[in-house]
Amino acid sequence: MKIVLDAFGGDNAPVEIVKGGILALNNCSDLELIMVGKEEIISNLIKENNGDMSRIEIVNATEIIGMEEVPTTAIRKKRDSSLVKAFDTLMKREDVGAIVSAGSTGAVLTGAVLKVGRIKKVSRPALCPVLPKLTEKGGSVALIDCGANAECKPINLCHFALMGKIYAETYLGIENPRIALLNIGAEDHKGTALQQETYQLLKKMDINFVGNVEGRNMLEDTCDVIVSDGYSGNIALKSCEGIAIGLLSMIKNNIKNGNLKTKIGGLLVKDMFKDLKDNIGGYLKKGAAFLGVKKVVVKAHGSSKADTIEVAIIQAKTMAESGMIEKIQAGIEKENMQITED
Amino acid sequence: MKIVLDAFGGDNAPVEIVKGGILALNNCSDLELIMVGKEEIISNLIKENNGDMSRIEIVNATEIIGMEEVPTTAIRKKRDSSLVKAFDTLMKREDVGAIVSAGSTGAVLTGAVLKVGRIKKVSRPALCPVLPKLTEKGGSVALIDCGANAECKPINLCHFALMGKIYAETYLGIENPRIALLNIGAEDHKGTALQQETYQLLKKMDINFVGNVEGRNMLEDTCDVIVSDGYSGNIALKSCEGIAIGLLSMIKNNIKNGNLKTKIGGLLVKDMFKDLKDNIGGYLKKGAAFLGVKKVVVKAHGSSKADTIEVAIIQAKTMAESGMIEKIQAGIEKENMQITED
Repeated sequence: MKIVLDAFGGDNAPVEIVKGGILALNNCSDLELIMVGKEEIISNLIKENNGDMSRIEIVNATEIIGMEEVPTTAIRKKRDSSLVKAFDTLMKREDVGAIVSAGSTGAVLTGAVLKVGRIKKVSRPALCPVLPKLTEKGGSVALIDCGANAECKPINLCHFALMGKIYAETYLGIENPRIALLNIGAEDHKGTALQQETYQLLKKMDINFVGNVEGRNMLEDTCDVIVSDGYSGNIALKSCEGIAIGLLSMIKNNIKNGNLKTKIGGLLVKDMFKDLKDNIGGYLKKGAAFLGVKKVVVKAHGSSKADTIEVAIIQAKTMAESGMIEKIQAGIEKENMQITED
Repeated sequence: MKIVLDAFGGDNAPVEIVKGGILALNNCSDLELIMVGKEEIISNLIKENNGDMSRIEIVNATEIIGMEEVPTTAIRKKRDSSLVKAFDTLMKREDVGAIVSAGSTGAVLTGAVLKVGRIKKVSRPALCPVLPKLTEKGGSVALIDCGANAECKPINLCHFALMGKIYAETYLGIENPRIALLNIGAEDHKGTALQQETYQLLKKMDINFVGNVEGRNMLEDTCDVIVSDGYSGNIALKSCEGIAIGLLSMIKNNIKNGNLKTKIGGLLVKDMFKDLKDNIGGYLKKGAAFLGVKKVVVKAHGSSKADTIEVAIIQAKTMAESGMIEKIQAGIEKENMQITED
C-alpha cells in the first residue's frame, strides 16, 4: 500500500512531516510512502533521520500553499505546489491508496473536490473527525460534518449519516452504529428547519437512527456517529477542545499554585493525568477523514508534529485497505434511491 | 425589592424552590418574596424551614405547567398555573421587580413574551447565561442567545450584541465589554450567510466589537460577550457543560480505580478539586437572564436545588436594581436608528 504525503503542508513542515513519515514506515512494514515537495530538502531530511529510502519515493514540487491563501485560487494557480502535485500523484497512479496532508483545511478540501472528485450521487463531501467517548468503557464517536459545509440542506445531512455509518463500520469497527442528529433537545420538533426536516428523513433511512443528541451528551455512550451541518459541528468540536484544554490547564495551575498538600498530591497523580492526556491526546492526534470523494483523503492537524503525522498515515492506510470508498459508493447508490422514492 | 418566585416550576419543586427562597431571604436583608403556587403546601414548607413569614407573601395557584407541555398552549390555557399567576403578579404590581422560575424553558420564555412583552424595537428577546473564563484571572463571559431563537436574522444578532453589552456593563460590571461573534474561524468571510452579514453590521455599531470567536477560545479571556443564534449558542453551551462534567468524572474514576500512589494523591488534591468545582459550579448555578422583555426574567436551571434558586433570586434582584431594563430600552432606541441609517 502506497500513501502520498504532502511533505510541505502544515505549521511544522517539512521537518516534522518527513519525520512522521519515517516513524510510520518504521512501525508498519508493508507501508510505502511517496513524499511530495522540494526534493533536495526531503532527501536530506530522510538521510538525517535514517529513513529507509527503499520504501520512499520523492516527487519534486517547488511551490508551497500557505495557511492563509484563498483555497480555490491556490489549487488552480499553484500547479507545482506540494499539495497539488500530491493530488496529481494520487490520481495518476493506481498503486496509491490515499493522501495525507497537514496543510490548510480549505486547500485540502478544495483540492480533494477538484482533483479527486465527488463520489457519484454524494451531494456534499464532509469532514469527519473521531472523538473519544468520555466514559469508563471508552470508545470512539465520529462527527460528520465539522466544517467543510457551513450551510447545508437536509439531503446533505442524510448523505453525511450514511457516510458516517460506513466510516464507523469499516474504520472504527462498530457494528450497526447508532446514528444521532446534533440538536438542542430530544424531541423531533427541536432545532431549526434544517434539523426538523433532517430528523424526518433520517427516520426513513435504512440506518440505526437513535434520534437527537445534545452537546451535553455527545461524548457519553449515546451514539457512534453524530450528524451535523459543518457550522454547528465545528462549534461543537471546538467548544469541546477548548473546554478540555482550559480545564486541564486550570487543574495544572491550581496544583502549581496550591499549598504543600496539593503540590505533593499533584506529584502523586501526575502519572494518572499523563495517562488521561495520552488517552484523549491519542484521539486529538487522529486526522479527519474527508468522506464522499473518490479516494481516501486524511487531513492531519495543521499543528501536527511527527507523532501526529504517523497516526494520520496509519489511519489513511487502514481506511484505504478497508474498502471504505467502494462501500460508500454502493451505500449512496442504494439509499439515495430510497430517499428519492419517499 | 420584591421578587416573584414560581414555587411550582422545576424538577425539585416545590420543596427546593421554597427552601431556596428562604435561603435568599436569610442572606439578603432587604429582599421580599412573593411565592406563587399551592398556598397550603407553600405555607407548610415555609413553617418547616423556619422562613420569615413577614417577608413572604403567597399567591395561590392550583395548576402546574409540566416540563413536557407545549409552551404556548400551557401559558394560554393554564391560567391558574403557578407560572402564569407569577407573571400576572409581576405585571399587576408595581412593587415587584423581577420573576424567577425553574420551570420549563419554553413556558417561561413564552410566558415572558406573552405576559411581559418585548421592549419596543427589540426584534427578539434572547436567553443569556453567564459562563466562567477558564483562566487564572477568572471572570465572566455572557453568551447571548443560547436557545430562545433557533433561527435568527442578522438584525436579531445585532440586538443580542447590544443587550449583551448592557447586561455585561450593568450586571457583570465590565466596562466597555468586548463583544465577539461566535464563528468557525477568525476571518470575516467565515461561517454561514448569517455570520457573514452579522459581522459587517456589528462592525458598524457603537460597540467594542472584537471580531469572531471560535468555540476553542470562547472561555479564554478573549471577549466578554459572545453573540450567537440560539441554535449554535445552545450547541456551544451544552458541549462545554458535557465535556466539563465528562472530564471531571473521568478524573474521579481514574483516581478511584488507580494504584495506591494515585489514590493517596487523589486524597491530597481533593480540596483543590472541590475549590475548582465550587468555582465552576458557582457559574453553573447562575440562572440565564431573558433579555429584551420589559421586566427582569431569570430562568433558573430545571434541576435547581435550594442553593441554585438562592443564586438566581439574588441575581434577579441585582439586575432589577441596576436599571438594566431602562438601559436596554434606551440603547436599542439609539442604536436601532444607526443600523437602519446605514
